[in-house]
Amino acid sequence: MVQYSPRVDKTFSAISDPTRRGVLIRLGRGDATISDLAGKFDMTLTGMKKHVQVLEDAGLVTTKKIGRVRTARLGPRRLDDESAWIESYQRMLEDRLNRLEDFLERTKGK
Amino acid sequence: MVQYSPRVDKTFSAISDPTRRGVLIRLGRGDATISDLAGKFDMTLTGMKKHVQVLEDAGLVTTKKIGRVRTARLGPRRLDDESAWIESYQRMLEDRLNRLEDFLERTKGK
Repeated sequence: MVQYSPRVDKTFSAISDPTRRGVLIRLGRGDATISDLAGKFDMTLTGMKKHVQVLEDAGLVTTKKIGRVRTARLGPRRLDDESAWIESYQRMLEDRLNRLEDFLERTKGK
Repeated sequence: MVQYSPRVDKTFSAISDPTRRGVLIRLGRGDATISDLAGKFDMTLTGMKKHVQVLEDAGLVTTKKIGRVRTARLGPRRLDDESAWIESYQRMLEDRLNRLEDFLERTKGK
């Protein structure tokens, strides 16, 4: 399981915010300008810029400025490491709960 | 896809830290006292208490104090919502990339 990965840290932190998760979903439907996104999420341009910057730092979004308009696009990074971490965690938790249950069963039988 | 869930926010934030991910893995092998954990992660007792508190707030860990010793145990919460969110995200990203590819193919053909 990936424990030390600044990229994984950044990504989990990036998706821990509901607005940022919303922005990713919105970009899944198509590219959007920062000002579109600010409007949709009822937020100042400055606030939205910060959120998009966090997503960009995590590699989840790329942006491009043409003239005065900055457009955000989803990708290119997938959440493979994060997905793998969560899956291993789920398996580990299940094992741990099973072992605790076995232990309790054995204790009860005595 | 879950967008507004304070629980999901808390959980992604909790697992965005490498020490906290390490503590979860350690607890997967068995319960541990805060002082064991502080030792293992070369951290002050106060620092470790804070990390465990964050994990407890997210429902990923429970603790129990007997006398002066506080022991941490994994669970009971699974990461089902977080796992579901990441899976939907992966599917959405794939769709989006496929659509962009189709668009580029069509543009090239013209």
